[in-house]
Amino acid sequence: MIVTRTDVTVELVKHSATDSDVATAARVSTIGGSHERVVDLASDTGLINYLMRDRHGSPFEHTSFTFYIEAPLFVAREHFRHRAGWSYNEESGRYKELQPVFYTPGPSRNLVQVGKPGRYTFEPGGAKLQAQTTTALHTAYEDAYQAYSGLLEAGVAREVARMTLPVGIFTSYYATCNARSLMHFLGLRTITQISKFPSFPQREIEMVAERMEDHLAERMPITYTAFNRNGRVAP
Amino acid sequence: MIVTRTDVTVELVKHSATDSDVATAARVSTIGGSHERVVDLASDTGLINYLMRDRHGSPFEHTSFTFYIEAPLFVAREHFRHRAGWSYNEESGRYKELQPVFYTPGPSRNLVQVGKPGRYTFEPGGAKLQAQTTTALHTAYEDAYQAYSGLLEAGVAREVARMTLPVGIFTSYYATCNARSLMHFLGLRTITQISKFPSFPQREIEMVAERMEDHLAERMPITYTAFNRNGRVAP
Amino acid sequence: MIVTRTDVTVELVKHSATDSDVATAARVSTIGGSHERVVDLASDTGLINYLMRDRHGSPFEHTSFTFYIEAPLFVAREHFRHRAGWSYNEESGRYKELQPVFYTPGPSRNLVQVGKPGRYTFEPGGAKLQAQTTTALHTAYEDAYQAYSGLLEAGVAREVARMTLPVGIFTSYYATCNARSLMHFLGLRTITQISKFPSFPQREIEMVAERMEDHLAERMPITYTAFNRNGRVAP
Amino acid sequence: MIVTRTDVTVELVKHSATDSDVATAARVSTIGGSHERVVDLASDTGLINYLMRDRHGSPFEHTSFTFYIEAPLFVAREHFRHRAGWSYNEESGRYKELQPVFYTPGPSRNLVQVGKPGRYTFEPGGAKLQAQTTTALHTAYEDAYQAYSGLLEAGVAREVARMTLPVGIFTSYYATCNARSLMHFLGLRTITQISKFPSFPQREIEMVAERMEDHLAERMPITYTAFNRNGRVAP
Repeated sequence: MIVTRTDVTVELVKHSATDSDVATAARVSTIGGSHERVVDLASDTGLINYLMRDRHGSPFEHTSFTFYIEAPLFVAREHFRHRAGWSYNEESGRYKELQPVFYTPGPSRNLVQVGKPGRYTFEPGGAKLQAQTTTALHTAYEDAYQAYSGLLEAGVAREVARMTLPVGIFTSYYATCNARSLMHFLGLRTITQISKFPSFPQREIEMVAERMEDHLAERMPITYTAFNRNGRVAP
Repeated sequence: MIVTRTDVTVELVKHSATDSDVATAARVSTIGGSHERVVDLASDTGLINYLMRDRHGSPFEHTSFTFYIEAPLFVAREHFRHRAGWSYNEESGRYKELQPVFYTPGPSRNLVQVGKPGRYTFEPGGAKLQAQTTTALHTAYEDAYQAYSGLLEAGVAREVARMTLPVGIFTSYYATCNARSLMHFLGLRTITQISKFPSFPQREIEMVAERMEDHLAERMPITYTAFNRNGRVAP
Repeated sequence: MIVTRTDVTVELVKHSATDSDVATAARVSTIGGSHERVVDLASDTGLINYLMRDRHGSPFEHTSFTFYIEAPLFVAREHFRHRAGWSYNEESGRYKELQPVFYTPGPSRNLVQVGKPGRYTFEPGGAKLQAQTTTALHTAYEDAYQAYSGLLEAGVAREVARMTLPVGIFTSYYATCNARSLMHFLGLRTITQISKFPSFPQREIEMVAERMEDHLAERMPITYTAFNRNGRVAP
Repeated sequence: MIVTRTDVTVELVKHSATDSDVATAARVSTIGGSHERVVDLASDTGLINYLMRDRHGSPFEHTSFTFYIEAPLFVAREHFRHRAGWSYNEESGRYKELQPVFYTPGPSRNLVQVGKPGRYTFEPGGAKLQAQTTTALHTAYEDAYQAYSGLLEAGVAREVARMTLPVGIFTSYYATCNARSLMHFLGLRTITQISKFPSFPQREIEMVAERMEDHLAERMPITYTAFNRNGRVAP
């Protein structure tokens, strides 16, 4: 009756974002803007490295990425905390009946938390715990969705009936950002060896971040390389 | 085992917000700021009415309200969509075990939705539906919290176990805003006869908004009166 | 020695902005996002009119316009006051020698201000006053630029020498915004008969706004029509 | 006829900002908010150091500082580029006649720029250059203000006459920020040995920043110490 997923969807719907956009905007500072705009990769690379290192962030804002995302609601909650340079539109539990699609951790998702707050690490927990977790989540999701359906059938408004639905349910949304706000998001929502500052994101939002990161790397390779070289600190 | 609530908590933790703050900031435009700052209620009233009517919003930003709020998670989700001029810190389901406190609609909360999207109205639904809803929600909440507790006992991380918890659970958060962002919020999240633009907020976030509105009315009466006179359109 | 201009430059450098972007983002609320995205002009028009009227602003944010602008410095100062949804990069008086290009009012620019604050209107002032103003500005600009050049020749840093330069000097900048922030700008920085709220922009920033408005009208005609029909109040 | 100043004015008009505000907001994550709020300096210090180091910035936003500032217009231009968490109201050259108060560099202000873009240093330049600069600025300011006065006397609108006025003229404004946006400003607009990232602000905006820094140090000493210990990188 219900569907479970162990992955997320991140689709790049459209974009207006190149390394050259950054370099062009930055050059207005030093040579004005009335010159011919040319793509000069060597020169762009040096300039973008400089901007990243000295934290001149505004040139990276003249770019735009629009993503379509399907993720559990607890991921959307964390995502929407990012305010500066982000725009969102999300599926509404008031305007539509929510579908019975729920998240369960896949086999590679570590389930046991070790250590103290702010310094947690995670360990697998074993096949038995994995099975127990999956079963418990599945049952909880089924019970909840049954309660939801029951209330809807009884004539209760969607916005009331949804109170039963767990944060493991999938939601869908559009998110638009620029390269600066995207790098800020990636710096906080991924775990890497090269990060200058530590972050401890929940694995599920990191799954969203990793997919977005692929798009940044593909569309703005010079910026992406400079971001990594700079310890993944957004400018 | 679980606790249900039909109300929300909104506490004004601290504030730095008077009508005089608005008038002082506005006067810098026309007479500079090096004059003695005096409170002149009659003059302030005229000035604030003018600012509101002609949508000069920035003077209202030199004010600050910090609220402590307890509300269901689905309300927090709507609240946190307000980005400009709002700051939030919320209880974390990753860092603490969430308490079994859940929302159920009170007797005056209409449960049946009539009309079409964007133009909904709500009707009571009757005592029987009310009882059925309360029971169904209570059962769903109990089942969900039992699943949550079971997973925690089995050693599963809080951030995974919480996937079972419904959006009807209570959360707590601090929210800081200024008078301009607060009026924008009130304009969208309350239903009144005098609003120039229609809004269709869910009743539960309106309950939060109404309590905040009391504080605005008390602390900044001139601004509040001008806001209402202006059709509750934030400047 | 100096150059004077009576106009401004507004060039649409790039954009990712269609009416369909708005409708697609809005529809995720009611039907989710996993459907095929199709362009349906009739349906989009109704939806966009509804969003504008009921002030659902966020769907308009999934769009992007990047402009290159040449305008007097006093215009840039007003433009940069727009914070939400705007990004800027400007020519720097610290990093480059500023060029001797200055603004003088053209023949159609009314020079005499009548009425009281917040309700000013402007009248021509006559040919003689026009000539006197042009001459006085030209002389002041020449004197100022000569002082600037003299200080530079003496070895004084650009950032110090520029203190002599008047706000009538031209600057150049890139500005990126979305359709929502652009409409907000247009609502405040133009004067029209159909505006629901009065605005009293300086003519020179209105010249910039009018040129931007042409681009909005061309790229997003449904949105633009709905904006005008809604009294030019940004959603 | 004109007045020159070599300093700036920064007055803390009001504030709602303590270290305890930060700690209280942060603790809602881990223990919820319904506990008694107590000031515990030892515990606050550890918590604030942790927040700063791991870049948890949002708790610092539940604070508010309102400053009144008098500074040259070229400083205000740089200040107003700070958008996130800043609100401004400035003296208007359209609504009031601007006063003849202008900035000249004081004896300790180095006038000669050495090195290449992004890596400038400044050297004194000598007494003779200092005198020459002061004289040249004074003359330029007098000429400009005379042109301004002449146009006003001829009946030209203030907004047109002001085109003659140089960016060395003083302006006045109110600026409201929170501790996070203030630290971000300080990190970019001061030069210190302990900064983890280099910055190259113009001396005159650094003068404003230094005065604001004194107020942060006085009102939020734990936060201020943690900021310095963290290489002056805002969280």
